[in-house]
Amino acid sequence: MATDPDDFERMWRDLAPVGRSASSGGYFRQPFTSAEREATAWFLEQVESRGLEVERDRFGNLVAWWRPSTGSTTRDALLTGSHLDSVLDGGAYDGPLGVVTALAAVDVLRERGFTPDRPIGIGAFVEEEGSRFGLACLGSRLAAGTTSWERARGLTDRDGVSFEDALADTVVGDTDLLAGVGMFVELHVEQGRDLVDREEPIGAASAIWPHGRYRFDFTGQANHAGTTRMEDRHDPMLSYAMTALAANKQARLSGQRATFGRVDVRPNGTNAVPSAVTAWLDARAETSEHLDALLADVERQAQERAGRDGTALTVTPESVSPAVHFDPDLARAIARPHDWPVIPTMAGHDAGVLSAAGIPTAMLFVRNPTGVSHSPDEHAEMPDSLAGVDALADTLERLA
Amino acid sequence: MATDPDDFERMWRDLAPVGRSASSGGYFRQPFTSAEREATAWFLEQVESRGLEVERDRFGNLVAWWRPSTGSTTRDALLTGSHLDSVLDGGAYDGPLGVVTALAAVDVLRERGFTPDRPIGIGAFVEEEGSRFGLACLGSRLAAGTTSWERARGLTDRDGVSFEDALADTVVGDTDLLAGVGMFVELHVEQGRDLVDREEPIGAASAIWPHGRYRFDFTGQANHAGTTRMEDRHDPMLSYAMTALAANKQARLSGQRATFGRVDVRPNGTNAVPSAVTAWLDARAETSEHLDALLADVERQAQERAGRDGTALTVTPESVSPAVHFDPDLARAIARPHDWPVIPTMAGHDAGVLSAAGIPTAMLFVRNPTGVSHSPDEHAEMPDSLAGVDALADTLERLA
Repeated sequence: MATDPDDFERMWRDLAPVGRSASSGGYFRQPFTSAEREATAWFLEQVESRGLEVERDRFGNLVAWWRPSTGSTTRDALLTGSHLDSVLDGGAYDGPLGVVTALAAVDVLRERGFTPDRPIGIGAFVEEEGSRFGLACLGSRLAAGTTSWERARGLTDRDGVSFEDALADTVVGDTDLLAGVGMFVELHVEQGRDLVDREEPIGAASAIWPHGRYRFDFTGQANHAGTTRMEDRHDPMLSYAMTALAANKQARLSGQRATFGRVDVRPNGTNAVPSAVTAWLDARAETSEHLDALLADVERQAQERAGRDGTALTVTPESVSPAVHFDPDLARAIARPHDWPVIPTMAGHDAGVLSAAGIPTAMLFVRNPTGVSHSPDEHAEMPDSLAGVDALADTLERLA
Repeated sequence: MATDPDDFERMWRDLAPVGRSASSGGYFRQPFTSAEREATAWFLEQVESRGLEVERDRFGNLVAWWRPSTGSTTRDALLTGSHLDSVLDGGAYDGPLGVVTALAAVDVLRERGFTPDRPIGIGAFVEEEGSRFGLACLGSRLAAGTTSWERARGLTDRDGVSFEDALADTVVGDTDLLAGVGMFVELHVEQGRDLVDREEPIGAASAIWPHGRYRFDFTGQANHAGTTRMEDRHDPMLSYAMTALAANKQARLSGQRATFGRVDVRPNGTNAVPSAVTAWLDARAETSEHLDALLADVERQAQERAGRDGTALTVTPESVSPAVHFDPDLARAIARPHDWPVIPTMAGHDAGVLSAAGIPTAMLFVRNPTGVSHSPDEHAEMPDSLAGVDALADTLERLA
């Protein structure tokens, strides 16, 4: 028994306009904004219509439970789901695909007449992208206890609003959502073209590359853009520009990833040499040693250039995540019956946080025809998404 | 008879806190903000206490008149003054020094028992810096008729507020402020170290270099910063970074000026390859030919890099001003009696606009010990500023 394509497509049509920019077609679903609240309200309607029971923790995460009707089970819960927030101007699938397929997979299992021996939960974690408060997987880190409330509460968005203040206007609960969870399976659109190259619609994850976010603060001296002789300047824009090029080159040469995608210039006036440029390096590498070497190379070149420009540089790691190796037995058990490939990913996920916290975890990927993600162009074909529903349903049936 | 240092310093103490950032010590006096309104209110109090008569035009500019008491004059008015707005995080003197010294010069002339044969006006022009609506000398351009109301009304600030809407909440008048003006003298803090090198507190201006502002729009493809292979990217940040370095190098080699001080990145997320980077080039050169050549060199290198990055670039001139040569006879007449040096400047001024509009115009500069301007570090020593008052009083006495 497979999923009903009409029901599935209807869910996508409901979600499609929520937080979508009319100009770019991309999504702006930052945590606790009206767009993200609307997506969450939609999710709550969906789980209510399925008779699932919602529990919340105090961080804004929530799980909708399908509990065994017999009630006599002692087995740990099986959690699935993903997140509803997006990066700034992101795609439709990153996050929601894991939530929508989970809802559809519950429908499929019920159609099949399947009743679980253990509770099955559909989770929606808060601020997976870190696009508002700067720390990716914030909700799952808090739920798993790998980031403290003391650290999280004071994180601020670009307008200075703290995570704690943003939460104050949100419906929360006091459940420890992961207390009874024995296993987590997250389905996600692939971010890359590995499945395209293999001509496979579905894959399972082997590992997540180590990942670091580092803040580069370049400071110089503000001055008049017209009157200040070029040789008298201390222009942090130049130190930054060289660093952005060096990071790109270093990553290309070493087969890793390095990106400067966010920059903040002060005072950011056309006719002023800037006083300061802050830029964030996103770096990922095969191993933690490679990541450290990549950062060291970029920082050394940045410091050399800052020395020549008469500017100052400090580098602050904002988050550094080691490699995550998903439970290999679980990946094999899931993938082997279907001959799904088992592949690594360079993207962080709540699944990585829960795995690192000791919960046996697996991920399923759905093919992305262009590999593009974190962009309005992110895409998954409907037949592949439906294959994802069946893959998740089969996996939940096997594990629950 | 010289100015009273106590009165002069009191005016600076009044103005000092208006719009000053507690963190940087710099000024944020963008047009029609509360800080700029407060500076204007202070100016109105000052001119009222001196019995001067205020006139306004419909663009937000104002002039306070000291009219000959006999009333029988037929001579054209002599205008002085400057502006009260600042760049973002600017200095205390750029603009206000010309207004405060003008008020003090009127006091000095009255103490001397001087009565003018022609009206003397102290002007305060709106949006000289172009820091809010993007077009420098907007107020004087409108007053002189060199920029049309049709163009100006639709200029918008970073929040999308138009100049017309911002004006709607401002007290305006309907006087053509320049109708009877036969001469303009603007005193300004020097932006550079020419007077420092010459060990002179006061100088007169010979010319303003040609100046252009050009918007560089780089567009690429947003994508995931972790999963997108380096060779699959179309990253406009790289095209921009190379362009910023190329502009700096080109200006250094040719003895001109080129600055990228303002950048706008979309979506500006740490874990996203940007979809677009917009950056503004401020370029100044000795002649218009040099300016055109500088822009052409920078644009050629930017286009080459964009081609390699798979990004697209369009360059839009937002404002291009030819060289201004101030009335040489007037400069000589002012400077010769005091042996003041006559020097060029690379900064635009309302004086340049009025000169280009056919009004005989002169500028006086007050020494700036560091040469720094458009920065919290901009400075003028009190003795030099007082020398500026006397210089302006002597000049007005000679010309009025």
